[in-house]
Amino acid sequence: MRLLHKVFLSLLLCFLCASLFAQVKIASSFRMVPLGVLGGIDESNLSAYMVAPVGSNNYICMDAGTLHAGIEKAVTNKAFTTSAEQVLKKYIKGYFITHAHLDHISGLIINSPDDSIKTIYGLKSTLETVKTHYFTWESWANFADDGGAPLLKKYHYKALEPGNEVAIDNTTMQVQVFPLSHSNLTSTAFLVRSNDSYILYLGDTGADEIEKSHNMQNLWQAVAPLVKANKLKAIMIEVSFPNEQPDKTLFGHLTPRLLMNEMSVLAKLAGSVKGLNVVVTHLKPPVASITKIKAQLKANNPLGLNLIYPQQGKALEF
Amino acid sequence: MRLLHKVFLSLLLCFLCASLFAQVKIASSFRMVPLGVLGGIDESNLSAYMVAPVGSNNYICMDAGTLHAGIEKAVTNKAFTTSAEQVLKKYIKGYFITHAHLDHISGLIINSPDDSIKTIYGLKSTLETVKTHYFTWESWANFADDGGAPLLKKYHYKALEPGNEVAIDNTTMQVQVFPLSHSNLTSTAFLVRSNDSYILYLGDTGADEIEKSHNMQNLWQAVAPLVKANKLKAIMIEVSFPNEQPDKTLFGHLTPRLLMNEMSVLAKLAGSVKGLNVVVTHLKPPVASITKIKAQLKANNPLGLNLIYPQQGKALEF
Repeated sequence: MRLLHKVFLSLLLCFLCASLFAQVKIASSFRMVPLGVLGGIDESNLSAYMVAPVGSNNYICMDAGTLHAGIEKAVTNKAFTTSAEQVLKKYIKGYFITHAHLDHISGLIINSPDDSIKTIYGLKSTLETVKTHYFTWESWANFADDGGAPLLKKYHYKALEPGNEVAIDNTTMQVQVFPLSHSNLTSTAFLVRSNDSYILYLGDTGADEIEKSHNMQNLWQAVAPLVKANKLKAIMIEVSFPNEQPDKTLFGHLTPRLLMNEMSVLAKLAGSVKGLNVVVTHLKPPVASITKIKAQLKANNPLGLNLIYPQQGKALEF
Repeated sequence: MRLLHKVFLSLLLCFLCASLFAQVKIASSFRMVPLGVLGGIDESNLSAYMVAPVGSNNYICMDAGTLHAGIEKAVTNKAFTTSAEQVLKKYIKGYFITHAHLDHISGLIINSPDDSIKTIYGLKSTLETVKTHYFTWESWANFADDGGAPLLKKYHYKALEPGNEVAIDNTTMQVQVFPLSHSNLTSTAFLVRSNDSYILYLGDTGADEIEKSHNMQNLWQAVAPLVKANKLKAIMIEVSFPNEQPDKTLFGHLTPRLLMNEMSVLAKLAGSVKGLNVVVTHLKPPVASITKIKAQLKANNPLGLNLIYPQQGKALEF
């Protein structure tokens, strides 16, 4: 009888642990569907990441290098259970463009004739380039609500300023922007909040030591309290080249060594980054180079980051 | 014995006929490998066509909407027996851009970091947009030899003027340009010659009757003698929308009806266009619309054109 009691108690304990574990698993805050993950030359797989609160279909799209080809792949993979047309028109509520280099916005321009009315967010300097170089009537019809006449008014430009948190239209999320140094351009990091959880997406960026900048330092200072409080669910950050790339040909990008340097700055500020989800984006082909980047990150990860390599069309949760 | 003689003679005749037929088949002048064939939204399959004299690997690329994804497909299909990297760097000797809309040049920009030194040909107005909107250091690094400093000098801009035939660098081909009307833009037709054979590639174009233009009429007058003399091996021309598209939303494009009207002008000038190879380009998704375009062209082809639908990565010969 006492044995039976013990067995019963053990089973109950197992059940409670399993429930707790299940709850921990269920407690993801964000769902992310990568539409494109590479840092170059493959037009069918360039930077674009859909992000929404778990359980919602009101996504934003962080950068928009490839849309259609990525959405098609996601639908094939059953990451979405609706049509590609509906994902483009209904699920994506707005675009967040980190900088105006074509591999981060080509998909938006190409898909614009089939898109629905929505907002394009970015720094003023980024939106200025979109307005004067892409939606111009020379490069493309002007689907926006500012710039060369006539205005087709499908897209509204919304310039974001560092220091303010702004509500994202037609979603329950908020966003803050931080400037990044990307060679001659100012690139952007978007800190997205859903309730009390955050996800941080960085566009192309160099390291402070190479760019002679404090942008990364300032960003890590801002997010360190969130890391400490376990509220930052993931950092999405680029590693474009392997360590062998000479500093003078980095063109405002990171290597595994430079990423780890930056992460150690964050670790000092936050106490620890052990187990932090770091989604590595913008790996530049060829395949041999991508393989090398992954090997170098794995071989030198003393902080214990949880390194994640996103795949086109495959959903992730954080 | 006389019977055996007759049989022998018959066999000889058959053999000679077969040889002649084989020679006719071998007598193609151009090899064309489509890298992208659609008129929209699929970033992995936008207008780009490699063309070379049969037997040569010195290709030019007519428009450059998609390069990498198309080359990869062509290599998979064994349309090329070398690597994708070699096709981009070694086989493509120059780009011919019909107009600067992004779906005709995005692949060139995205692939430029991995490309080799070569020339970009086009009308002065087209090259001006490439210079001021794409290779600018805001949209992309300036890989060209003109425009915003510093100049990386990988590409040389060569402006072409209507009325002159110009040799194409690093090939045995020549080219003449003709202006086309594409709504607010001037688009281009490239008439490419290899020895005594020609192929005509038209960028996006509206019909003279809609565009209030004589550009198509002038082009047909110029090529009619080549059709008459059986020297024009193929016309590559767009049909973007089915006949149901209202005139006011054609945006400088053709429908099956408008294509056939234009072909009847050419037929009058040339005597006949029966059996002329017409490669139909730039069909705009969705699939239902593309299916309709093909059905409408098939149902209304009184001139007896040989209508050809190019497929991405599958070589054709003319």
